[in-house]
Amino acid sequence: MSQYSFLDDYSEGCHPDILAALADTNLVQQTAYGNDDYSERARALIREQLGRRDTPVYFVSGGTLANIIITASALRPHEAIIAASTGHIVGRETGAIEAAGHKIITVATADGKLTPEDIRSALANNAHYPHMAKPRLVYISNATELGTVYTRAELRALAESCRANDLLLMLDGARLGVALTTEASDLTLAEIADLTDIFWIGGTKAGALIGEAIVIPNAQLAHEFDFHIKQRGALLAKGRLLGLQFATLFSGQLFFALSAHANAMAQKISRAITASGYALASPTQSNMIFPILPDALLEKLHQDYEFHLWSKADDEHAVIRLVTSWATDEEQVNAFIRDISEK
Amino acid sequence: MSQYSFLDDYSEGCHPDILAALADTNLVQQTAYGNDDYSERARALIREQLGRRDTPVYFVSGGTLANIIITASALRPHEAIIAASTGHIVGRETGAIEAAGHKIITVATADGKLTPEDIRSALANNAHYPHMAKPRLVYISNATELGTVYTRAELRALAESCRANDLLLMLDGARLGVALTTEASDLTLAEIADLTDIFWIGGTKAGALIGEAIVIPNAQLAHEFDFHIKQRGALLAKGRLLGLQFATLFSGQLFFALSAHANAMAQKISRAITASGYALASPTQSNMIFPILPDALLEKLHQDYEFHLWSKADDEHAVIRLVTSWATDEEQVNAFIRDISEK
Amino acid sequence: MSQYSFLDDYSEGCHPDILAALADTNLVQQTAYGNDDYSERARALIREQLGRRDTPVYFVSGGTLANIIITASALRPHEAIIAASTGHIVGRETGAIEAAGHKIITVATADGKLTPEDIRSALANNAHYPHMAKPRLVYISNATELGTVYTRAELRALAESCRANDLLLMLDGARLGVALTTEASDLTLAEIADLTDIFWIGGTKAGALIGEAIVIPNAQLAHEFDFHIKQRGALLAKGRLLGLQFATLFSGQLFFALSAHANAMAQKISRAITASGYALASPTQSNMIFPILPDALLEKLHQDYEFHLWSKADDEHAVIRLVTSWATDEEQVNAFIRDISEK
Amino acid sequence: MSQYSFLDDYSEGCHPDILAALADTNLVQQTAYGNDDYSERARALIREQLGRRDTPVYFVSGGTLANIIITASALRPHEAIIAASTGHIVGRETGAIEAAGHKIITVATADGKLTPEDIRSALANNAHYPHMAKPRLVYISNATELGTVYTRAELRALAESCRANDLLLMLDGARLGVALTTEASDLTLAEIADLTDIFWIGGTKAGALIGEAIVIPNAQLAHEFDFHIKQRGALLAKGRLLGLQFATLFSGQLFFALSAHANAMAQKISRAITASGYALASPTQSNMIFPILPDALLEKLHQDYEFHLWSKADDEHAVIRLVTSWATDEEQVNAFIRDISEK
Repeated sequence: MSQYSFLDDYSEGCHPDILAALADTNLVQQTAYGNDDYSERARALIREQLGRRDTPVYFVSGGTLANIIITASALRPHEAIIAASTGHIVGRETGAIEAAGHKIITVATADGKLTPEDIRSALANNAHYPHMAKPRLVYISNATELGTVYTRAELRALAESCRANDLLLMLDGARLGVALTTEASDLTLAEIADLTDIFWIGGTKAGALIGEAIVIPNAQLAHEFDFHIKQRGALLAKGRLLGLQFATLFSGQLFFALSAHANAMAQKISRAITASGYALASPTQSNMIFPILPDALLEKLHQDYEFHLWSKADDEHAVIRLVTSWATDEEQVNAFIRDISEK
Repeated sequence: MSQYSFLDDYSEGCHPDILAALADTNLVQQTAYGNDDYSERARALIREQLGRRDTPVYFVSGGTLANIIITASALRPHEAIIAASTGHIVGRETGAIEAAGHKIITVATADGKLTPEDIRSALANNAHYPHMAKPRLVYISNATELGTVYTRAELRALAESCRANDLLLMLDGARLGVALTTEASDLTLAEIADLTDIFWIGGTKAGALIGEAIVIPNAQLAHEFDFHIKQRGALLAKGRLLGLQFATLFSGQLFFALSAHANAMAQKISRAITASGYALASPTQSNMIFPILPDALLEKLHQDYEFHLWSKADDEHAVIRLVTSWATDEEQVNAFIRDISEK
Repeated sequence: MSQYSFLDDYSEGCHPDILAALADTNLVQQTAYGNDDYSERARALIREQLGRRDTPVYFVSGGTLANIIITASALRPHEAIIAASTGHIVGRETGAIEAAGHKIITVATADGKLTPEDIRSALANNAHYPHMAKPRLVYISNATELGTVYTRAELRALAESCRANDLLLMLDGARLGVALTTEASDLTLAEIADLTDIFWIGGTKAGALIGEAIVIPNAQLAHEFDFHIKQRGALLAKGRLLGLQFATLFSGQLFFALSAHANAMAQKISRAITASGYALASPTQSNMIFPILPDALLEKLHQDYEFHLWSKADDEHAVIRLVTSWATDEEQVNAFIRDISEK
Repeated sequence: MSQYSFLDDYSEGCHPDILAALADTNLVQQTAYGNDDYSERARALIREQLGRRDTPVYFVSGGTLANIIITASALRPHEAIIAASTGHIVGRETGAIEAAGHKIITVATADGKLTPEDIRSALANNAHYPHMAKPRLVYISNATELGTVYTRAELRALAESCRANDLLLMLDGARLGVALTTEASDLTLAEIADLTDIFWIGGTKAGALIGEAIVIPNAQLAHEFDFHIKQRGALLAKGRLLGLQFATLFSGQLFFALSAHANAMAQKISRAITASGYALASPTQSNMIFPILPDALLEKLHQDYEFHLWSKADDEHAVIRLVTSWATDEEQVNAFIRDISEK
C-alpha cells in the first residue's frame, strides 16, 4: 500500500513483545489444547485484573467463534437473543448465530447501545407463548459498532434489567481495550465481570496476531464449555499461541497502554477536524472518527490515505470512517492533520 | 364455549364432505407415505387448476413444516430470506426458520405486503460480501398476516424484481383460499404458479382437518424434495389423510366455495360495522375485520362473542380482530350485526 | 390393491369409533393448539393409565417429529445419543436427529435391544473429553425395529444403568401398543413411566389416523416443551384432531384391545408357519413375523398377498416380513394360513 | 516438561523461518481477511505445486473448521457423509459435523482406509429412499488416524468409485505432509488435486503455528465459499498470519523437507524397535509408531519420555503410540533408541 491506512485496527501484525515471546518459547515443548503454561499464566493475569480467583477464562481463535460458542452453549433451541439492529452479530457475521439455530430479535437504537427500555420493548413484542422464540440473552458490544461506549451507570442499569427479567447479559469485547481506556468510560474490567454473565476480551484488535479471551463470571454458563470450543472448531492444537499473546498483553499494562494509544490518536484527529471547522457525524468516544468532509478534500486525502466512505452527507459532503489502533503511526496522524487543515 | 367464536379460522373440524370421504375409504388398504390413490387424485386435481401437467405437488401436515421444508431445502447455509417484519415466519413460528439455520432479513411495510422497492432496499443493506448472509429467497404470504392481499400487478412486479436479482420467490398460502376469492384480488392459482418458484395452498384454514399442499413450479427446487419432507417429520405414514382431504376440496369448486363463504361473511360484518357508523382500522380484504369500537360496546359483545383485542385506539375505543371462516354460521353473523347496530 | 397387504400397520384409515367421534364433534367450536376439551380428556385418560396426576402429556403429529422434539429439547449441542444400530432414528429418519444437531452413537445388538453392557461400552468408547460428543441420552424403542420387546427386568436394568451414569432414558413407542399387549411382555404403561425420563405412545400404528402422545415423567424435560413442539412444526392448529383420537383410544381399553388383535393375528400366522414345518428367522414377539420360506412358495403367495422381502436365506429360501395390525382381517389371515399349509 | 514428548506433532511452536517472516513483515500494513500479499503469494506457490493456475485456495484457522466448512458448504441438509469408523470427524471432533446438520455413515475398516468395496456397501445399506439420508460425500484422511497412507492406485480406485456413484471425494490432509513424503506413498500433491473434489493441506502439524489450506479442484464446490469461511468463524481479520506461514512453508521445499524429517525420525525409531526384537502393532507408514513393548520397559521409558498408552496387548505388554514431527530432536531419538536397546 502506498497510502497510509486508517481503514481498520487490524492492518498490521502484532506488538513486537509478542513476537519476542514467541521466539523465546518457540521450541519449548508444551501440552496441547490450551493446557500449556502460557495459557495458565494468561488466565492468572486476567483473573488478577478481575480481582477474581476462579473465574473461568478460555482462549479462542476469533470473534465470530466467540460469539457462536457463547450463544450456542448458553441457549436452548427455542431461546432468542436481543441485540441492537447495528450489532456485529446482526449484520457482520454472515448469519453465524442463525446457522447455529438462534433467532436474533433486533431493536433500533440511536447510538448502538441498548437500554432497559429497549429490553422492555423487546420482551413486550415477543411474549406470544409459545408462538414466538423466547428472549433469553442480551447481546451488547463495548465499544459498539458505532464506536460508542457504555458508562458504568448505563451498564449497571442494563444488567439490572436483565436480572429482573431472567435474561443473560453477554458482552462482545472485540474492542474492549479502547472502550475501557477512553475518557468517555468510567468502567473497569472487574466491573464488567460483576455486571455480565459472560464476556470476551478482544486480542486481535488490541495488538495480538489472533485470539480472544472468553471470561465467564456466571458459573452455570461455564459447564462443559470445553466441548463447545472444540465442537465449533476454536480449540487450537497449539493453544500456546493464544495463551502466550494474552500473557504478554496482560503482563504489566501493555493491553491498556496499546488501547490508550489508539484512543489518543483518535482524539488527536478528532480535535484537529473540529479545529479545522469540520463537523463530526457523531462524537469520538473510542478509536473511530466519523467526520463530515467536503468531497473535494476527500479526493485529495485519498491520494495519501485509505479510509471508508461511510455515507453521503449532502451533495458536496460525505461522512467517512477513520480507525486508529495500537499501531497507528503518530507521524502519519500529524501528516493527516496537516493535510486537513491546509487543504 | 358459550360464546360464539370469531377468534380464528380453525375452531371447527372440517367440511362434512371430508368426513364422508374418510368414512367411505376407511378400510381400503393403500400404499403409505403419500403414494396412495387419493393423493394421486388430489395432485391431478390441483394440477388441473394450475393448467400444468407435471408440476410437483406434495402434501405436508402443517404450515410451519411447509415453511421449514421449503426454506431448508432451497437454501444453502449462507443464504438468507427477505420477509416483511410482520411475516408469519418472522414472529409466529418460534424461530423455526433460524432453528433450521437461516437468517431472515426483515423489511418494515405499511400493509404486510412486499414491493420491489423493499427488495431493492434489502439487497442494498445486505451487500457486504462475505460478511453478510446473502439474500436468496423472498418470503411473502397471501393473504398477509394483516389480511391484505396481492393484486396480479403487485405480484408480477415483485416476481420480476426477484428474477432480475436472482432471488427465489416463495408464497405462504395458509390463507390462499380467501386471498383468491376476495373481490380485492384478480389473481388465479395458475397465475401464482407462473409467478412464484414455490408456494403452498393451506388446507387447515380452508375446511380441512389438517394439511397443506406444496406446489413447486421451479423444477430445481423439487430435486430430492421427498428427503426433506421426511427429514423434517412431515411425511405421514397415512398420507391418505392429506390426499383425501385435498381431493375432496378440489373436487368441483369446494375449496373456492368455502373460501368465498368466509369472505362473504367478513364483508357482511365489515359493511354492517361501517353502516353502524364505526370505522375500520384497515380495509377488509379477506376474512379478517379490524373494526374500531367503543369499549362499552365491546364489553357487551364479549358476553356473546369471542374475538381478539388487537390494540387500544384511544381512551374509549379499541381495535379488535374478527375472523370468519368456511364454517362461520350466518345466523351468528346476523346476530352479531344486530347486536352492533342496536347497542 | 388386488392383493391383501401385510406390508405394514398403516395401510388402513382408523378405527371406526374415531370417525364417529370426529363426526359427533365436528362443528363444536374449540380452542386451538391443543387447548381443546378433547385433548384435556385424552390427557386425563392417559394419566389414569399411568396412575399419575400431573405428568405432562403432549400430542404431536408424527413419530419423527416426536423424536426430533424430544432430543432437540433435552440435549445441549455437545450431547449425543446412544442407540442400537438398528434403531429407527439411526436409519429410518433421513438424518433428522443429526439435522437438529446431534450425534448418534450406535451399538451393534443381536436383537435390537440395548443392555447395560451396551451402555458401558458406549461410554467407554466415547470418553475422550472434550474431543468426543458427550453421551447424554439413551434411545430405545419398544417394540424394536426387529419386533422384539423389553421385559420389565430388562427395562429396569437399563434404567438403573442410565441413572447410575447420568444418562436420560427415552423410549420411542411407535409400536408400544403391541409391545405391551404381547405375551412376551410383563410391562405396563405405568411402569414405563416409572422407568423412563420421557416416552411416547404411538397412535398412527395403533388405530389412529395420525398422532403420537409424548409423556414426560421427568419434569425437567417438560420445561418450556411447548416452544419446541411449535418450533419443529408439530403444533396443530386443530389439536382437537389429535386429542379426540387419543380420547377415543383410551376410553375403555380400545388402545389395548386393538393392539392385542394385532398380536393375536401375528401369533396365529406365526404358529401356522411353524406348524407347516417352516422356520422363523426370529421369534414372534409382537406384530412382525419373519418366516423363512421357499422361493417357489413366495412366488405363489405374492399373487394374493403383499409383504416385504427381508433378505435371502439361501439359494432357495428367503426371509420375509409380515406385519399385522389393529385392522388385520382374520379371514385374510385364515386364507393366508391355508395357502401356506396347502402349497 | 522434564520428559521429552513423543505425544503428538504439535508440542512445539513453528519453524524459525516462519517467526523470521512474521518479524520481517510485522508492521507492513496489509488488507484484511485473506486479501493480503502474503496470502496471494502462498496461493501462487501452492498452485505451482499443483500444476494448476486457477484452483481456488483458502486458508482457515484449524482442521475442525476446515472439515465443518467443507461439508456444510458442499452438502444439502439431507445429504450424508461416508467415513471410516476411525475417521477424525467421527470420533475426534465432538460431533461438529452433526452439529452442522449432517449424518456420518461409518464403515469398519482394517487400517483406517476406505476402499471401493466400502463405498458399495455403504450405498447398498443406505438406499431406502427417502427414509435414509442420502450418501453424497466420501471423507478420507491421508495419513489416516492410524498413520496409514493411500497409494496412488488406492486413491485412484476410490476416486473412480466416487465418480461412478455421483459422490464427492474430500480429503482431510491434517497430516498430508508426512503422507506424501513417506516411502510408503507414491502420490503427489498434483495427483491429489486431480483425484479429489476438495482437500486441505495441514499446516499446524507440519511446522506452522496455526492454519490449514483448503484446495478446491471441483469448481462447483468453490461457489461462494467465502461466505462459509466467514459464517463458521474461520475468516481471520489478520489473514496475513495464515498466508505468511504457507508462503514460507511452500517457498523452496520447506513443507516437504520438514515432513520428511518427521518420517525419517519415525523410521529410525521403528527400525530400532524391530532391531531390538520388539514387534509393531502395525507397520510404520508415516510419523506414528505403534510398538508392542513390555510393561517393565514402558515404566522405565516413562521416566524420560512422554507417549500415549494405546491399548493392552497382553498381561505383560502394551501398545504405545509415538509421534514424531518436523521438530523432533534427533538426539532425543538417539537417546530413546539407546534406552530401548539397552534396557
